Amino acid sequence: MSIASVRNLDGQLKRCSINTATLGHREPLRITVDRIARAGFGAIAPWRSEVEAGDVHALSRQIRDAGLSVSGYCRSTYLPALDPEERRANIEANKRALQDAAVLGARCFVMVVGGIPVGSRDLEGARAQVRDGVAELLAVAQDVGVPLALEPLHPVYAANRSVLNSLGQALQWCEALDPHGTGFLGVAIDAYHCWWDPDLGPQIAAAGQARRILAYHVCDWLHDTRDVLLDRGMMGDGVIDLPGLRGQVEAAGYVGPVEVEIFSKDNWWKKDVDDVLSVCAHRLQTVC
Amino acid sequence: MSIASVRNLDGQLKRCSINTATLGHREPLRITVDRIARAGFGAIAPWRSEVEAGDVHALSRQIRDAGLSVSGYCRSTYLPALDPEERRANIEANKRALQDAAVLGARCFVMVVGGIPVGSRDLEGARAQVRDGVAELLAVAQDVGVPLALEPLHPVYAANRSVLNSLGQALQWCEALDPHGTGFLGVAIDAYHCWWDPDLGPQIAAAGQARRILAYHVCDWLHDTRDVLLDRGMMGDGVIDLPGLRGQVEAAGYVGPVEVEIFSKDNWWKKDVDDVLSVCAHRLQTVC
Repeated sequence: MSIASVRNLDGQLKRCSINTATLGHREPLRITVDRIARAGFGAIAPWRSEVEAGDVHALSRQIRDAGLSVSGYCRSTYLPALDPEERRANIEANKRALQDAAVLGARCFVMVVGGIPVGSRDLEGARAQVRDGVAELLAVAQDVGVPLALEPLHPVYAANRSVLNSLGQALQWCEALDPHGTGFLGVAIDAYHCWWDPDLGPQIAAAGQARRILAYHVCDWLHDTRDVLLDRGMMGDGVIDLPGLRGQVEAAGYVGPVEVEIFSKDNWWKKDVDDVLSVCAHRLQTVC
Repeated sequence: MSIASVRNLDGQLKRCSINTATLGHREPLRITVDRIARAGFGAIAPWRSEVEAGDVHALSRQIRDAGLSVSGYCRSTYLPALDPEERRANIEANKRALQDAAVLGARCFVMVVGGIPVGSRDLEGARAQVRDGVAELLAVAQDVGVPLALEPLHPVYAANRSVLNSLGQALQWCEALDPHGTGFLGVAIDAYHCWWDPDLGPQIAAAGQARRILAYHVCDWLHDTRDVLLDRGMMGDGVIDLPGLRGQVEAAGYVGPVEVEIFSKDNWWKKDVDDVLSVCAHRLQTVC
């Protein structure tokens, strides 16, 4: 039976990962690690703020000892800036984060590239700055052995979070910056960001063909989203055909972790952390 | 001097139109018409709710007598529905609206096509329903002499307002449904919905080449948008390179109205109506 024909993730919890943002960052990472492992998941995706608040080597050991792999390290410092010194500082911050990603043994470093600098209207200029920054970081990524996963964000974030807004655009950048496919530049496909794209199916196939799919993130888009940043839905509560999407991603050859990433200030972040993990486990195994 | 080289709309207010939503629908249309004409604009884009609340023939006469043209009639009843009878009713409502559009002498009937029906996850099914509906309405549009302007909406509305989300997608539908270019099926390009699109430039050129550009709408995308439906910005207050965008639209051959459409519940809709018109006039002539 091919992976693509598996109808849901029943019994595959070890393949599933929890992005710690899903739990609202309410506890130190060392506690979160244990909760995620105890709930049966096989991987975790921590954030820099919580890793940098502790000792990365100790956290890395703890994660490994708990039986977890690191599906991705979240996330890059935004790259574009009007001030060249600030731009340089952003790149350097990402280089340091890549070192930590290597210590953590992360499958990839998740690149949320940043928006248009405040006061600017130069979208193409910001995109050029990002490409230049990624080109520089790619060399470091190879050195430390952690691939860069360009994550196209939903176009609603084009102004203030990411000028990279579609999978097709991400793949064009990958081809331009890494034409020979070193394995150190690829994409993170997040259902929330990409589900609407009329060109998504062909682009997923192209991403697979080019061996660029480094991560796959799930949550759901609620029909009447109240807040586009912090009102993401639990899988099954929204409009995304998640089994169909995973089928496309796996038909394209992806066999890596399925990572849950839910920002939900007024709902899931208010619920008991273990309950949230339990619901994630259930939904992953029934509706994803 | 080519139109594309005009650097702003200074002195071209007669070419500019006010979509009545910009004023927050706080007064009856008959009053709004006079305000817009008195402020020096050459066109208006009224909404069905306000037209249908009055006598369409009388309103049409008033608009003409005020020296205004109708840059577009807003807007279609959403097409997709799970219930076939509801779907049929949606199409029939649009046929009736097209009759009114003809009475108004509208340059186009603006098609906001609708989202995924509540309870469904079938994005492609909803898109197919829209295409079927547009095909049926195209025959009526030709009969009454009012072109259908497919308006791609920002992907943030894909779930609940429009499954048509990029100019490229709209053009594909135009070619499929109206391959010979009758002149009765085209697109409305709205800066707010399209500005982020990495493929926008080539698609605008393609739209012009195919003579499909029926309308051009402006407002601005605020860097930190608080509400994606009702927090649109006044031209000049956000991140969109409006002169650059208009340059592309005009280089593609568009010489029609530039229509201002701003939904702004907490800001512009709270200001004095004549002041809003005055600011629109100023911004159109300085930053668009």
